[in-house]
Amino acid sequence: MSSGVVPAVDVGGTTIKGALVDHELRIVDRLDRPTPVTGRPDSVIDAVCGVLTSLAPTSGPTAAGLVVPGIVDELTGRTVHSVNLGWHDLALREIVAQRTGLEIAFGHDVRAAALAEVAAGAARGASSAMYLSIGTGIAGAFAVDGGILVSGGYAGEVGHVTVDPAGSRCSCGGRGCLETIASAPAIAHRYVELSGHRVSGAADVRDRVQAGDDHARLVWDDAVRALAQVLATAVSLFAPEVIVIGGGVSGAGEALLRPLRREVTSRLTFQRVPRVVVGTFGAEAGCVGAALLARDLLLASG
Amino acid sequence: MSSGVVPAVDVGGTTIKGALVDHELRIVDRLDRPTPVTGRPDSVIDAVCGVLTSLAPTSGPTAAGLVVPGIVDELTGRTVHSVNLGWHDLALREIVAQRTGLEIAFGHDVRAAALAEVAAGAARGASSAMYLSIGTGIAGAFAVDGGILVSGGYAGEVGHVTVDPAGSRCSCGGRGCLETIASAPAIAHRYVELSGHRVSGAADVRDRVQAGDDHARLVWDDAVRALAQVLATAVSLFAPEVIVIGGGVSGAGEALLRPLRREVTSRLTFQRVPRVVVGTFGAEAGCVGAALLARDLLLASG
Repeated sequence: MSSGVVPAVDVGGTTIKGALVDHELRIVDRLDRPTPVTGRPDSVIDAVCGVLTSLAPTSGPTAAGLVVPGIVDELTGRTVHSVNLGWHDLALREIVAQRTGLEIAFGHDVRAAALAEVAAGAARGASSAMYLSIGTGIAGAFAVDGGILVSGGYAGEVGHVTVDPAGSRCSCGGRGCLETIASAPAIAHRYVELSGHRVSGAADVRDRVQAGDDHARLVWDDAVRALAQVLATAVSLFAPEVIVIGGGVSGAGEALLRPLRREVTSRLTFQRVPRVVVGTFGAEAGCVGAALLARDLLLASG
Repeated sequence: MSSGVVPAVDVGGTTIKGALVDHELRIVDRLDRPTPVTGRPDSVIDAVCGVLTSLAPTSGPTAAGLVVPGIVDELTGRTVHSVNLGWHDLALREIVAQRTGLEIAFGHDVRAAALAEVAAGAARGASSAMYLSIGTGIAGAFAVDGGILVSGGYAGEVGHVTVDPAGSRCSCGGRGCLETIASAPAIAHRYVELSGHRVSGAADVRDRVQAGDDHARLVWDDAVRALAQVLATAVSLFAPEVIVIGGGVSGAGEALLRPLRREVTSRLTFQRVPRVVVGTFGAEAGCVGAALLARDLLLASG
């Protein structure tokens, strides 16, 4: 096993993604496992440690990257809150380090993905950037001069900006959050409600738009407008040079980006119009970001 | 004249504020002049240079702070754009330095005010903060770890976030921007439209709220709700620990802050609730920030 290879794990609500990442940020080995849905943190921790120890060769790396969703405090290595995974104020970095014998670089899944895109992907060279992951949930990250905004772990909750105060109830307890209109499950759910047809997911709705389905068009346009409204606000506040779209829904490519650019630009007057692009690392951005965190940790510890 | 005293000028749409600021950030001398309204940049530059040379004693400081509104690029010392002052892509730092013989620390009025509050005022010690100036216009600044977000001069256009897409036309060309509902002129204008009564300004409307005037209450509540909507969005995106309110309308004190805190908090679910406070330096925050920039310049140049 060559040096410079680090194991990286990105814990999602559905899948625990593991990867061995080399010094050129290529994924040289993979190991995915379904995320246990027992609701007990222990079962998820067991699975994470299993993936890490399987990936890390005995004579190999001494550090690994681990990124998780929710409210995460990178500084203290604790998960403050995660609805999906049942975590609440857990010293995850320490627990996983003790169980695996690896030094753990610990971070937030979306901020790690943003770091990957800023350091080596679609936002490389931009002095300010916004990353937006649109998938099961919607979350973002803001990068300034290569650093990612953390604010105690609370920054980037783009999915919970209110778009329609009279809209549907959100899992967060609010109403009409962006997530209730433009996340992958919301797009699928709204299409089913409107059309009465079954659908396999947001990608299916997008395909139906292209096939001329009016209900699909309505739901897709609603999602694009809601995204554009929040992105235009973020542009007024933060003025990112580039907005990088990641997460499952970014797989729609130009079917999403073309109308999204048009809708964002139409909402701006004197503000600087950002580039809006799809991420370089796609669904692997979280793992690549976790590997970057692990490399930084190895450099820092000599 | 003691050393450590620097002249500072804050150019507004109505007044050019000048101050001599000592090393404890106290204002030891003042000189205000009305901003010339000829529409020619030259007349404003003349007035700015006049205030600076009058304030700076001949045996005194070698640097001064100058802050201006609009789109400002601190790095290059240029004003990219200012509607109110008729400036467009002007190398203001260099022009004023040549005319006055002073080294000029150049910045943006609201970012300088934010710097003052973060370095020595209401946001001191906070790892992340938002500053919001509510006056003739509405503009903001975001501070992270003591640094202020610039994004090429385009960050912080809080006043031009769309609150009501069907609302009044804004000077920026958009519709229903926060500024059209919650700036001082907007509050006064909306009250006059609604009540048919004349009013001297936003402070007068606030006084009428306290006197039980229903039209005033309606207009004031609208302004508070619009501010709360945009602040709640900023909290989801950036999660500032503290929000500092400055500008003329902040003179309303708790008559503004009490309902504003309530409305912001009611829009949050799991997000971290920020402290919402009035700035320490009030209307002088821009000058104090300009003085801080000048001190940094003197330190940097030895």
